[in-house]
Amino acid sequence: MIGGRYGLSSKEFTPAMVKGIFDELKKDKPKNNFTIGINDDVTFTSLDYDASFTLDESAWRQGLFFGLGADGTVGANKNTIKIIGENTNLFAQGYFVYDSKKSGAKTVSHLRFGPKPIKAPYLIKKADFIACHQFNFTEKVAMLEFAKEGATFLLNSPYGKEEVWDKLTGQVQKEIIEKKIKFYVIDATTVARETGMKGRINTIMQTCYFALSGVLPREEAVKQIKKAIEKTYFKKGQKVIEQNFRAVDTTLANMYDVQYPAKATAANHDLLIVSKNAPEFVQDVTAVMMADHGDQLPVSKIPIDGTYPSGTTQWEKRNVSDLVASWDPELCIQCGNCAYVCPHSVIRAKFYHKDNLKKAPEEFQHAPINARGFPETKYTLQIYLEDCTGCNLCVEACPVTNTVNPSRKAINLTQKAPVLETEKQNIEFFESITWNDRSKIDFSTVHGAQFLEPLFEFSGACAGCGETPYLKLLSQLFGQRLLVANATGCSSIYGGNLPTTPWSVNKEGRGPAWSNSLFEDNAEFGLGMRITADNQLEMARQYLMQLKEELGENTVNEILEAQQVQESELVAQQLRVQLLKEKLKTMNSSAAAHLLSVCDQLVRRSVWLIGGDGWAYDIGFGGLDHALASGKNIKVLVLDTEVYSNTGGQSSKSTPTAATAKFAAGGKSAGKKDLAMQAISYGNVYVARVAFGANPQQTLLAMREAEAYDGPALILAYSHCIAHGYDMKNGLDQQNKAVASGHWPLLRYNPTLRKKNQNPFVLDSPRPSIGLKDYAYNESRYKVLTMTNPMEADRLMKHAQELVNLKWKNYEELATKKASDFVPIA
Amino acid sequence: MIGGRYGLSSKEFTPAMVKGIFDELKKDKPKNNFTIGINDDVTFTSLDYDASFTLDESAWRQGLFFGLGADGTVGANKNTIKIIGENTNLFAQGYFVYDSKKSGAKTVSHLRFGPKPIKAPYLIKKADFIACHQFNFTEKVAMLEFAKEGATFLLNSPYGKEEVWDKLTGQVQKEIIEKKIKFYVIDATTVARETGMKGRINTIMQTCYFALSGVLPREEAVKQIKKAIEKTYFKKGQKVIEQNFRAVDTTLANMYDVQYPAKATAANHDLLIVSKNAPEFVQDVTAVMMADHGDQLPVSKIPIDGTYPSGTTQWEKRNVSDLVASWDPELCIQCGNCAYVCPHSVIRAKFYHKDNLKKAPEEFQHAPINARGFPETKYTLQIYLEDCTGCNLCVEACPVTNTVNPSRKAINLTQKAPVLETEKQNIEFFESITWNDRSKIDFSTVHGAQFLEPLFEFSGACAGCGETPYLKLLSQLFGQRLLVANATGCSSIYGGNLPTTPWSVNKEGRGPAWSNSLFEDNAEFGLGMRITADNQLEMARQYLMQLKEELGENTVNEILEAQQVQESELVAQQLRVQLLKEKLKTMNSSAAAHLLSVCDQLVRRSVWLIGGDGWAYDIGFGGLDHALASGKNIKVLVLDTEVYSNTGGQSSKSTPTAATAKFAAGGKSAGKKDLAMQAISYGNVYVARVAFGANPQQTLLAMREAEAYDGPALILAYSHCIAHGYDMKNGLDQQNKAVASGHWPLLRYNPTLRKKNQNPFVLDSPRPSIGLKDYAYNESRYKVLTMTNPMEADRLMKHAQELVNLKWKNYEELATKKASDFVPIA
Repeated sequence: MIGGRYGLSSKEFTPAMVKGIFDELKKDKPKNNFTIGINDDVTFTSLDYDASFTLDESAWRQGLFFGLGADGTVGANKNTIKIIGENTNLFAQGYFVYDSKKSGAKTVSHLRFGPKPIKAPYLIKKADFIACHQFNFTEKVAMLEFAKEGATFLLNSPYGKEEVWDKLTGQVQKEIIEKKIKFYVIDATTVARETGMKGRINTIMQTCYFALSGVLPREEAVKQIKKAIEKTYFKKGQKVIEQNFRAVDTTLANMYDVQYPAKATAANHDLLIVSKNAPEFVQDVTAVMMADHGDQLPVSKIPIDGTYPSGTTQWEKRNVSDLVASWDPELCIQCGNCAYVCPHSVIRAKFYHKDNLKKAPEEFQHAPINARGFPETKYTLQIYLEDCTGCNLCVEACPVTNTVNPSRKAINLTQKAPVLETEKQNIEFFESITWNDRSKIDFSTVHGAQFLEPLFEFSGACAGCGETPYLKLLSQLFGQRLLVANATGCSSIYGGNLPTTPWSVNKEGRGPAWSNSLFEDNAEFGLGMRITADNQLEMARQYLMQLKEELGENTVNEILEAQQVQESELVAQQLRVQLLKEKLKTMNSSAAAHLLSVCDQLVRRSVWLIGGDGWAYDIGFGGLDHALASGKNIKVLVLDTEVYSNTGGQSSKSTPTAATAKFAAGGKSAGKKDLAMQAISYGNVYVARVAFGANPQQTLLAMREAEAYDGPALILAYSHCIAHGYDMKNGLDQQNKAVASGHWPLLRYNPTLRKKNQNPFVLDSPRPSIGLKDYAYNESRYKVLTMTNPMEADRLMKHAQELVNLKWKNYEELATKKASDFVPIA
Repeated sequence: MIGGRYGLSSKEFTPAMVKGIFDELKKDKPKNNFTIGINDDVTFTSLDYDASFTLDESAWRQGLFFGLGADGTVGANKNTIKIIGENTNLFAQGYFVYDSKKSGAKTVSHLRFGPKPIKAPYLIKKADFIACHQFNFTEKVAMLEFAKEGATFLLNSPYGKEEVWDKLTGQVQKEIIEKKIKFYVIDATTVARETGMKGRINTIMQTCYFALSGVLPREEAVKQIKKAIEKTYFKKGQKVIEQNFRAVDTTLANMYDVQYPAKATAANHDLLIVSKNAPEFVQDVTAVMMADHGDQLPVSKIPIDGTYPSGTTQWEKRNVSDLVASWDPELCIQCGNCAYVCPHSVIRAKFYHKDNLKKAPEEFQHAPINARGFPETKYTLQIYLEDCTGCNLCVEACPVTNTVNPSRKAINLTQKAPVLETEKQNIEFFESITWNDRSKIDFSTVHGAQFLEPLFEFSGACAGCGETPYLKLLSQLFGQRLLVANATGCSSIYGGNLPTTPWSVNKEGRGPAWSNSLFEDNAEFGLGMRITADNQLEMARQYLMQLKEELGENTVNEILEAQQVQESELVAQQLRVQLLKEKLKTMNSSAAAHLLSVCDQLVRRSVWLIGGDGWAYDIGFGGLDHALASGKNIKVLVLDTEVYSNTGGQSSKSTPTAATAKFAAGGKSAGKKDLAMQAISYGNVYVARVAFGANPQQTLLAMREAEAYDGPALILAYSHCIAHGYDMKNGLDQQNKAVASGHWPLLRYNPTLRKKNQNPFVLDSPRPSIGLKDYAYNESRYKVLTMTNPMEADRLMKHAQELVNLKWKNYEELATKKASDFVPIA
């Protein structure tokens, strides 16, 4: 659970109170109920231990390798273990540390070799060999702390042996000098590019390791590396194998011994993990975890009720991409498309009075608002550079092209380094401008939505993720009164990826309350949230009636009778409840205290059950069906990637015919389950199928209709995904084609229309204009079968096309029926 | 798991082997790993204990009450506890022992009262007061064993104080004399009838208890009993309360002290629980459990692999009804309807050559077979009297009326006692006639099906159960090669109601293998059975190929290529596999041993996933949907009572609109989930909706089509149920009305037809001919709302009728569509 707005928060317990409680508890406990390795400063039951204790490591060669998630470092190290294990008398041990960030996270490989079996169940603290595969880690990670005296340090560096020394920070220089480290550099990135390997530096760094460590004779090592390459890349074809061979052969000529002075020349660099502006908790707890020192945190630092502060990804500044978005105020038509599609909420827009600019930094960008009659209003689109992943979706979404230079749009990717410092100041200024008044924004258009503060930001999702734009939109529309039950899956990982959380709060401290439950019970979990909210609301209403005299009849009636549909009405009710709370705090009755504990519910809650297709179509389907059938006011958002994305691409019942996936490697022959039609069959469920890349306006409309409907709602949201096997910058284009081919018809089923005696089934996309193939074969998940089994691929594609045709026919039929052809509402 | 035909059975372990294994295991175990109260003669780890130990019971008054399930004994005793607990200084304790039989089971209430809090967590062994609410228990249950010297014995007896002594068995007389028991009788059944209470004797017996026990002064006791009556029957209205008052007032005048002689006059009666013809296991284990002495069984008696012998209900002979079915050979047209609908498989038919009759008992009934050209063939319909529950469904199903006496049919209910002994002999003879050859029976008609041996019989289901006829039919059609995964619910209770099991085997020892799994995973469990069977079949085929030379090419090819669709083909394959097994036993290779372990799979297996609507529509729905979507050859039978029957009538998603149930006490407003249409949407699932009482022929056809289809199948089977609130003898009539009103349209969706380019959707029942009300208001579940909330009842019934109309319209539309309007098969 993140967000601490319900019930008693950890701040209401003082440390003394906590200690008192636990001292009482301890009395009943046996004396020897201790745990080892935890600094328990609350119940004082932990044992001291010698943190510096190690086994005798003298016979081992220990190596640490610092790489970037998905750069191949871990895979190459696994091969290294196999090569050494199989070709020498040495025993091998490997352990790989990486977190659950979807992209751009650090990996650390711990490798040990020795003449006897290695039984060392702890990480390496004194390494003979340290490799750094990313130059910028030298500024972020104190990796030479782990170096033994005389160890070898191999650095992938864009700077040559002459230049590199001066690019290092003071700390690194000092460690190298003091520990008499043998220091080597290679520009692996350039070697990789020149041998056709693009960004893959793993084989190159591995070759260097063998050359420097001397575990095997060099020639033998090269032979074995090549053998491993053949095995690893067998499926990718001869070309890839030969590129790797060439990289190996070129490597050693490009590796250099670095001579360094006897004294450090550079200044110490601030290894600060988070900004000094960050809140106390972030500095004390979050930052410690981010620095890989979470196990040093004393128990007292952890929130006592399990409620975890939200909005902390903003302090991470992961800087995963060198290329970032850049705005062109001259060209921009201020449509808001780029902000809408940005998966990481790094593009934000505000309009404001021009007087605000008086204090603006010189380079702060702005433009007159693109609306007649507001000459004093300015508009700024601000990019959060350090959080941008360079996915390119904003550029793809931009409808404007520079007529002079057709390769330029109103938003473009650019090198980050030159503009970083300027933009940091611009962001600081941008944040000082208040967000626009929600009651004055037109929620119904993409253009309007850009001015709503996102309360989901800077997540650890993949660059170009097709899921997160939906969550961001949800948080913009209803974030201040949102409760989210999140099923296990990608969204639960990037949604609550401790130590940081992307779900955030606004300046008033209002934001989504979020919790993750299991694949198999999330719908029930969310239904429970709804029932709780309803019961608490009922309690609040009863207490209000009870306290009518003291609170004033008008006040009570206003609150009880408030309509809460328009945003302006919601804002007004929020204010009433705020005033009520202040009044209640001055009162002394138990009824007032009870009312205070539940009166937040008087502002209409929006309960959303969120998960992927693995949850909704498969493992959690029984519960989902039950929650929908309950008739309760719950909203379901299915981030449909048509495959189990988080666990590595297994087939779900949402996986379409003819696509391949794990457990359906020969192509899926069954049809994609039509969850929309199953939900529609209940009659009183609002159902929509949306694709933000194909029709952002329809997505927005569906979300607002779903939320406004006083009953269950289901939104199936097409989410392009790296599991589909293509460059995510084409995600929007593929969404368009999914709709245009009829694979993903856009629709809305609105029971409210049925009540008004209108046809509740609305088809929002036109009859298919391209064949299914024209969509599917841009994606590896379909394409691969045409290579491995062309006959079957052809058969399945024909069958899939037949299914699409039939689905369309049925949908068109439904769209033209009479209201009375649909289930009546009781 | 019952049925021991797969894998190593317990018989293949000798006791010495078992002891050897456990002796080895014990070596590693700590010495003090003992359990108390179990006679462990296998691992010898149990501790001796003093079974006769009791606390000091001198201050307690202890009463034992022997009643029949649902006769109100337990309820009245609960009231007794409340009365004494609230109106005296005594403390009270109650414990109620009853098994999970659905009807006709014994209940024992254990009541203690004392001046201090009673902490006695064990059953009463020395009672001051014993009440027997059913006279025939005196012959079956040694209840006076539990009487203290000088105890009081109260017997509900149809015989007066003068006659009763001579109706008791020798044992009972002796116990009464030896223990100097104060013996009272009352004809509570007559008192109940005469005061308008029908069969409810509970209040009467309770009044006697208070009168005899003297815990409260009589007048005070009567006052408190009446208060409790008012509270208990408040909802049933003033009339019921007054009847109870009258019963109380009449009671004491009808209770008599019995004077008895100083010496027993009657002979000892044989308390034998099972026939001496029963197998060893039944005598040694089952019977001991049936006699309530299961905890005395030593561990060695329990099957070592958990596989439990099946077909043991036949030894129970529960004799729950005084009225039983009786056949009239003269009138009978031999249609088989009565045998088909009998929920307890007590009506069986055989045809045979007349020479068989030479050894028949004189009173054995028979008739010439009703078929031209077979003058030498005779027909007998045999009733298993002791297993008959007197439900009357057979009489309702009989199409023939005696023209002379229109109240008589070809089957009628009659008093059991006068014919019991004769019929026992007839049954014995009937069983000596072999069952008709399956390959010569016409499976496709109800008439033919009566000649198939049921392998599901004499279950503990309620009298008139609407579920069990489906299971019996299933066992008749496919029983010899059936695997059943049974979800929790009524069917898992009466299906594996240890110590006895209704799933049975034929003379060759072939019968269903059955196991129960949870509500939430039964579909997955059954899918696992299928996958296992498929994999074992594949192994068997491979070993056959491997052993081709030794086994002979012809033999192997015949087995591998055998068609197994017609019953005659299946019989032939069974024979081939039998011969193969004998050959394999003589061979010595490991391949032969492996083949032997899996070769049973060479006869086509039929895997059925069975459960109620609580399983299929609700708790197990996610798994069911997944199993259906798997495309695997699994068959699903949903015994749809439209409510959670086993747990006491909670609303499920199958509960229809306007019906009441627990959690839907105000009438259900949501629609009944259309599980058939959801399954049909997959395209490759065979789906049928059946109601055996409305169209037995269609039920039979659907089961056979489902089984023959090489893919998933789902049969939704309307099951009338006591939870619907009406006399079950009208179950067939209500089934008819469910169909005639359009509430339960009969349909079949056959993907095989789609493959042949025909419309796969077949509507088997005509357009509704009666209104929904005409069906629904015969059942309390609907009717009750018209009394408690007539306006809402009316509103909901109108809505329900609208839903029925719409469903019909849609179904008729589907039935007239073209093949190409339905999902194509890949």
